Amino acid sequence: MSDTEGKVTSKDTEEVIMEATFRAISKHGYADLRMRDIGEEMEMTRQVIHYHFDGKYDLLSSFLEYIIDQYEGSVDVDEDADPQAELAVRIDQCLFGPEFGEFDHWDRMKVFHELYSHAQNDEQHREIFNSHYEGMRDSIVEVVEKGMEEGVFHTVDAERMGQLITDVIHAARGRKISLGHDNAPEDARRAIDEFILDSLYVDDELQQRQT
Amino acid sequence: MSDTEGKVTSKDTEEVIMEATFRAISKHGYADLRMRDIGEEMEMTRQVIHYHFDGKYDLLSSFLEYIIDQYEGSVDVDEDADPQAELAVRIDQCLFGPEFGEFDHWDRMKVFHELYSHAQNDEQHREIFNSHYEGMRDSIVEVVEKGMEEGVFHTVDAERMGQLITDVIHAARGRKISLGHDNAPEDARRAIDEFILDSLYVDDELQQRQT
Repeated sequence: MSDTEGKVTSKDTEEVIMEATFRAISKHGYADLRMRDIGEEMEMTRQVIHYHFDGKYDLLSSFLEYIIDQYEGSVDVDEDADPQAELAVRIDQCLFGPEFGEFDHWDRMKVFHELYSHAQNDEQHREIFNSHYEGMRDSIVEVVEKGMEEGVFHTVDAERMGQLITDVIHAARGRKISLGHDNAPEDARRAIDEFILDSLYVDDELQQRQT
Repeated sequence: MSDTEGKVTSKDTEEVIMEATFRAISKHGYADLRMRDIGEEMEMTRQVIHYHFDGKYDLLSSFLEYIIDQYEGSVDVDEDADPQAELAVRIDQCLFGPEFGEFDHWDRMKVFHELYSHAQNDEQHREIFNSHYEGMRDSIVEVVEKGMEEGVFHTVDAERMGQLITDVIHAARGRKISLGHDNAPEDARRAIDEFILDSLYVDDELQQRQT
């Protein structure tokens, strides 16, 4: 992080603070986090944090948006993909995540799920999580609707299907993190295929009839 | 709680402490909870807590087992119910919960989900949650297997089906609590019916063919 000693923009500084926050939460957890712990993860003086953020709560709200933005920005789907392929890519990205630089998907998800449980007492965080949840669900709903229009998916309640898949993804991530079920995402992927998407794919029936 | 001033057994005392812990967590949350907060919710002297429990962590572990025991003990299924009816009762109980005395299902679930996210850093709590998770999943797996034996359910991977339904229940409860989606359990129930159980029921196909 030697670039932090040179001339840096405000945006660079915020990113340094965000990554320091990440390291500090990974080490100390959310509940016991102190501003001092974040300062210790940075080469810059701790005063910089107070210049950019109005206290711990403001910093943590920005941090939550930061990890969600990175997560959402990373979903990369080919515009020309057929609905079945696009749905598979989206589900995989949500379940297994893309690879990031210093911290991987599961480091981020640990923090995500810890903050998620606190959202019950926090209107502002709840709003951020809700908008993330809606974004994830809607991206699945859109593909389901596209497939229905193209006649490759059966007619279903697309909203309900999107919500169900989003719930399964969310539960599997939580189970891996909280219960240590390392195979939960793979197991969930198979269950989604066998028991949920089977009601969706017109092709599967054709294949079954042909065999 | 006037009986706490009379002669009480050790079991009674522990229940009083557990219910006081419940009230204290509901008010203050888990992260900021102090032994003093629990003491303030009891008519007995706070020393009683220290006599029965070896510190805050020991108390909270017992508390987690206490709410899970109550929850599991409350699932009440008629032995003679057919598999389809039994499955419905079990799913409903897990999603909507039974009614308890002073605190209802959702008060308990709030605490449950807050402690769940902390289990990532806590081996002992993780074990308690794992055994609860397995109990819930296995109870669904057993009904699915029973239905397969009786020929009223299609042959499926019962373990995977049980895990999928458990995940959906868990996610819907978390969504109601953390995101404030009050209809999440009802929505999940409908999605389970429409998209998961439809792969299971032999009857449904008959009905569809008949209409």
